[in-house]
Amino acid sequence: MKAKVYVTLKREVLDPQGDAVRRALGTLGFEGVRDVRIGKLVELDLTGADRAKAEAELPAMCSKLLANPVIEDARFEIID
Amino acid sequence: MKAKVYVTLKREVLDPQGDAVRRALGTLGFEGVRDVRIGKLVELDLTGADRAKAEAELPAMCSKLLANPVIEDARFEIID
Repeated sequence: MKAKVYVTLKREVLDPQGDAVRRALGTLGFEGVRDVRIGKLVELDLTGADRAKAEAELPAMCSKLLANPVIEDARFEIID
Repeated sequence: MKAKVYVTLKREVLDPQGDAVRRALGTLGFEGVRDVRIGKLVELDLTGADRAKAEAELPAMCSKLLANPVIEDARFEIID
């Protein structure tokens, strides 16, 4: 069973890395980019096939390690 | 219009950051994690509503700036 966790900065948190990418895209000629935000994608390969267990554990994994709940949001999806 | 770009390391490329996360999850008691891979999630806010233009430009943005095509794969989705 696989899971994907998407970690993004909260809206109110500044993203200087995203700003740098937006400016670089403009320099490369891609003018139509208003805003860029950079997040993380964590792909997990889980042993076992207990979807309920995975659904219970993933929020804990996010809040304990994968995301910083002060400045980041995390959402996940489970792929059978 | 918004777009999301998912940048992941190619399968054959080692991911020491992912390995460190896997070990840390084990230390925290999450035993059922076989493998972890860390990628990037780039969220773009695009001006205009020309989906065809976005579909044409996004692969170029990926290969020129957002991903390193030697070691990374990139895929994108456009959200109206």
